[in-house]
Amino acid sequence: MVFAASLQTPPLRPQDQAPLNLMPYPASVLRGAGSLKIDSSFTVALTGYSEPRLERAAERFLRTLHRQTALPVAAKPGDAAKATLLVHTDHPGKEVQELGEDESYTLEVTPTGAKLTAPTPLGTLHGFQTFRQLVQISADGFVAPAVVIHDMPRFPWRGLMIDSARHFIPLDVLRRNIDGLEAVKMNVFHWHLSENQGFRVESKKFPKLHEMGSDGLYYTQDEIHDLIAYARDRGIRVVPEFDVPGHSTAWFVGYPALASGSGPYSIERRWGVFDPAFDPTSEKTYKFLDQFFGEMAKLFPDHFFHVGGDEVNGKEWDANPKIQEFKKAHGLNTNEELQSYFNKRLEPIVAKHGKSMVGWDEVLDPSLPKDIVIQSWRGPDGVAAAANQGFRVLLSNGYYLDLGWSSARHYAVDPLGGAAANLTGEEKARILGGESCMWAEYVNLENIDSRIWPRNAVIAERLWSPQETKDPDSMHRRMEALSNRMEWLGLTHKTYYRQMLQRIAGASATPEEFAALNTLANLVEPVKDYTREETAPAEPTSATPLNRLVDAVPLESSAARHFAEAVDKFLTSACHDAPLQARLREQLTAWRDNDAKLQPLAQRSFLVREVVATSEDLSTLGTIGLAALDFIAKGQPAPDDWKVQQLAALQQGAKPKAQLLLMPAPAVQKLVEAASATVLCSP
Amino acid sequence: MVFAASLQTPPLRPQDQAPLNLMPYPASVLRGAGSLKIDSSFTVALTGYSEPRLERAAERFLRTLHRQTALPVAAKPGDAAKATLLVHTDHPGKEVQELGEDESYTLEVTPTGAKLTAPTPLGTLHGFQTFRQLVQISADGFVAPAVVIHDMPRFPWRGLMIDSARHFIPLDVLRRNIDGLEAVKMNVFHWHLSENQGFRVESKKFPKLHEMGSDGLYYTQDEIHDLIAYARDRGIRVVPEFDVPGHSTAWFVGYPALASGSGPYSIERRWGVFDPAFDPTSEKTYKFLDQFFGEMAKLFPDHFFHVGGDEVNGKEWDANPKIQEFKKAHGLNTNEELQSYFNKRLEPIVAKHGKSMVGWDEVLDPSLPKDIVIQSWRGPDGVAAAANQGFRVLLSNGYYLDLGWSSARHYAVDPLGGAAANLTGEEKARILGGESCMWAEYVNLENIDSRIWPRNAVIAERLWSPQETKDPDSMHRRMEALSNRMEWLGLTHKTYYRQMLQRIAGASATPEEFAALNTLANLVEPVKDYTREETAPAEPTSATPLNRLVDAVPLESSAARHFAEAVDKFLTSACHDAPLQARLREQLTAWRDNDAKLQPLAQRSFLVREVVATSEDLSTLGTIGLAALDFIAKGQPAPDDWKVQQLAALQQGAKPKAQLLLMPAPAVQKLVEAASATVLCSP
Repeated sequence: MVFAASLQTPPLRPQDQAPLNLMPYPASVLRGAGSLKIDSSFTVALTGYSEPRLERAAERFLRTLHRQTALPVAAKPGDAAKATLLVHTDHPGKEVQELGEDESYTLEVTPTGAKLTAPTPLGTLHGFQTFRQLVQISADGFVAPAVVIHDMPRFPWRGLMIDSARHFIPLDVLRRNIDGLEAVKMNVFHWHLSENQGFRVESKKFPKLHEMGSDGLYYTQDEIHDLIAYARDRGIRVVPEFDVPGHSTAWFVGYPALASGSGPYSIERRWGVFDPAFDPTSEKTYKFLDQFFGEMAKLFPDHFFHVGGDEVNGKEWDANPKIQEFKKAHGLNTNEELQSYFNKRLEPIVAKHGKSMVGWDEVLDPSLPKDIVIQSWRGPDGVAAAANQGFRVLLSNGYYLDLGWSSARHYAVDPLGGAAANLTGEEKARILGGESCMWAEYVNLENIDSRIWPRNAVIAERLWSPQETKDPDSMHRRMEALSNRMEWLGLTHKTYYRQMLQRIAGASATPEEFAALNTLANLVEPVKDYTREETAPAEPTSATPLNRLVDAVPLESSAARHFAEAVDKFLTSACHDAPLQARLREQLTAWRDNDAKLQPLAQRSFLVREVVATSEDLSTLGTIGLAALDFIAKGQPAPDDWKVQQLAALQQGAKPKAQLLLMPAPAVQKLVEAASATVLCSP
Repeated sequence: MVFAASLQTPPLRPQDQAPLNLMPYPASVLRGAGSLKIDSSFTVALTGYSEPRLERAAERFLRTLHRQTALPVAAKPGDAAKATLLVHTDHPGKEVQELGEDESYTLEVTPTGAKLTAPTPLGTLHGFQTFRQLVQISADGFVAPAVVIHDMPRFPWRGLMIDSARHFIPLDVLRRNIDGLEAVKMNVFHWHLSENQGFRVESKKFPKLHEMGSDGLYYTQDEIHDLIAYARDRGIRVVPEFDVPGHSTAWFVGYPALASGSGPYSIERRWGVFDPAFDPTSEKTYKFLDQFFGEMAKLFPDHFFHVGGDEVNGKEWDANPKIQEFKKAHGLNTNEELQSYFNKRLEPIVAKHGKSMVGWDEVLDPSLPKDIVIQSWRGPDGVAAAANQGFRVLLSNGYYLDLGWSSARHYAVDPLGGAAANLTGEEKARILGGESCMWAEYVNLENIDSRIWPRNAVIAERLWSPQETKDPDSMHRRMEALSNRMEWLGLTHKTYYRQMLQRIAGASATPEEFAALNTLANLVEPVKDYTREETAPAEPTSATPLNRLVDAVPLESSAARHFAEAVDKFLTSACHDAPLQARLREQLTAWRDNDAKLQPLAQRSFLVREVVATSEDLSTLGTIGLAALDFIAKGQPAPDDWKVQQLAALQQGAKPKAQLLLMPAPAVQKLVEAASATVLCSP
């Protein structure tokens, strides 16, 4: 036995102490010695309070563990006496999941077993996700490192909004994204269900809403019911949004009498802010919304009910004499005051059906009851303003996934940052958390996952983890590991990316041509913020095919980030890091030569031809970077005119083409500047 | 208008006459001038005979066209007067699809429109697939080149067998593979449903078959009914196989009295040929099979019913005194004669239920009725022997997908090749076609697609296209284009390959490490034929996780083939092709340097560590190939001792490691030999 013991792996090895790729990072993590081996004998047992949801969660956990490892682990939870992972849940949660329920859990992993304990099923669900993220491949098989984790969320409301109105998003896509939310411990799915471009819910009271307002693309009430159950199984509340009084053209296709204009109305095909708006002066509007909200309040059990309220341009109101008269008669001087009147009529209707009203910034009005929740999107200080006025508030400004910001930029946005940092404790407590938003002008079932993931995970971490968890390097490492894992959940951010590139390349592309397209694609990003419309080759509509490179590439280039990191590291090593220089040279050479490999494909595919200028720019980047490295290697500063020429070329290449930005340009510029400095590189 | 006309693209351009990537290649293809533009206005109309199946086929065609192009084409067939693709079907096919129905069609594409005409819905289905394969990306958008195609199959029986018994294959996997069969115009799905390792069909008459013989993994009768309808929609017959008297352990778990041994029996977990076999001397056996086959004959409407009959080792028969007595009493001298007796009892039972019996080679016995069909797997001459004896016959020898043969090797196997070429016309007419076979010892839902596709497409072509269609270069080009297209059908041969590599690499792998693993993976193939068991690190069973590199990589390395083609081209250019030499050098350099990039991952993943020796071999291949190119470039033949050393190193590297073969070795050897020749390279 002495021999056997001495042959065992020693408990503390360097790889045991490799950083944990957990996201969101738990509130408290204490590393232990050694790790728990995960093999075919792995089992889970549920003890304490139990319910079918927990059984299903355990089975789902085992299924995902199987996908991740291919080990033939037991499919169902088993005997507590023999369980590898022993789970204990204290007591039930609320029948309908509520804001602010206890979501904490404790997870302890030792080389001989693991224990997960939580007060409520919500904590148990979160603990399963953390355990799953702990499981990793090692030199000796699959393992979970020894660790003691005490974890709980920083904010009680951590959501993702999906706009399934501008482009209809099928249910299986929503389901896989809800799986993603569960993985990153978000607990709200905010479902944006109506827009100028579509009304997506079956209404039994007002069937012309979905029949005439959706092109046949809507969710039935049964489907919605099932999706809510699916989300509840994963500890996620579903908050519906019916946007009024603007963003409402699709309602009026079937019910034109509700609008402020004269109609008729048809489903909007373009993007933007449009004129149609509910008539806030007509009692018919309130009667209709009372009945419709009543129907929806029953369908969606969550306590919160989102009424939108954003971006009313007021043109239909201005053009309607009856409305003008009403404003005068009621002393409403502006359209903002008119909308405020509308909201004050709306709030009791929502309250009557047992709900708290949520609305975008625009609904903020000190005279509204403090029960409502403001979702702040318009500026960084909206949160503080609302909280200061006594309203509960959610941050979404800075969390718009469709704007193409980097993960680091999203990550730096804190609900208690900016003006909110100076609020009183009481005011701060009104800040419930935040929501990332996936607006859907340019997303469909193929690319929505790559627009949401992995960047949404860093917003999830911001809302879950302690405020001090903010190192971008650690975040990037963990986000990329999570991104690699997320495919086991069925998310398609990598799969569809490859398939969309294949469409662009065409079936006859050679592997070399496809690789060249892939290299280029990995280094570009779509234009940012709201410039997509401005730079569009033709006015985009909901019928525009999303088959271009700008539609396929991820919104953040990890390859460009890695290159930039390598350049920074190289320059701060005083350019003495030879292997790093070799690596940079290898990459720059590949970029320089890439265009020649892609050119034949550009002759055969209009979708490749569109990006030829960008491909040439990449080639130029490679050439410039290599020349800079040559100067650096020789130890002779580059002449000034060379520098001027290169910077001009870089500036030319920095202009977006085919709505794409070539992301490694700033890092190459750093190389040029280093090559031209009197003292080459940092000392 | 003159101006407008002159601005149009001229009708005949070089890319219009690029080879068509059709597979299987049609019987007759006449190229026209120009091409038909495929844009959002594309519509289909159905004329002539119609039925719901055709409507569904048109919708499916439009859906796939949308996936392929992302164009918002109409979702349903429309008005004949405006249709881009006008379809005419003459008359209905058989209620239950029959062997030998007319499957021909004519497809005409001009720059202004397209016409598809077919006598029966089967031809229409095939024509849709051909049209879809014609649609390609071009410099001007999506197009279908102008063409007149008259097409019909060479053989009436073109099938794929899937063994869903050794590993259970879920229904969605079967469905996507049936979509694949439709795409390559195969018309039979042969469903291998029972084995030693599992009985996969719900039996209402004998429920212990699936309850005790399947680990709960079986298809319900409702599911089977749906799958048959799904296949019929795609012009595919479903032929069930219930393998008797051997390969039958799983039957005996619930019904041990049917076996020749004394039992009890449990589901077999190992692979191979096992002893359990039905007792051919007991009337209970025939009574049971009569009732069970009766139940199944109703469930499966196809006229053919497969009873297996292969690989009975006879050990249980030899060990059973009652059976020995029976043999003596009936003058049956060998177990083959006893099995022949069994088959002669079985055939009338199958016939009584209205079916023709199909069996593997072993059932061949001149005294059986000529109505039966022999499926020949054991050798190249089985087909000729069976046809010569008056039986109808299917070729499967040479079409076993699990053996890991190259596509070229499968492609060269012809049902009318070898001894069959010398048969009379009447005898040849008995050769109905063939079936590829996907035996499932080492496949599951993750890797089955990559074992079937794209290689199965070349077998489909062999069975559909004229015998003269046999150029391997054309085949390889078209197969790869088809492989790229097949993802739009939902096949996962690329997707799961990437995901399985990710599992092997682990979530924390850097992009560079992952790329290194990918490079290695693309250049290896699993060991061939039946050597997988022999070389296994431990006895494989049905519980062995399929998570190793040998499970993930495709069975044919297209990267290695491309490299070999490039080497051949280089050597036949008398080594004067400088760009080609540069390309070879680039690849060899990447291989030489690949191992260093992979090594860090081998420290962190046991599944990478397993393939380190192969990675080192690849590095050696790169070094040797580069040295050979250096000699060639200098124009000085390499010294003899160098050659001897390199060949020895190559031989060492050619040994399988971790059950993997490094495929580019022979091409590198060619470079070494060329470098050492007195006259370098071919003149």
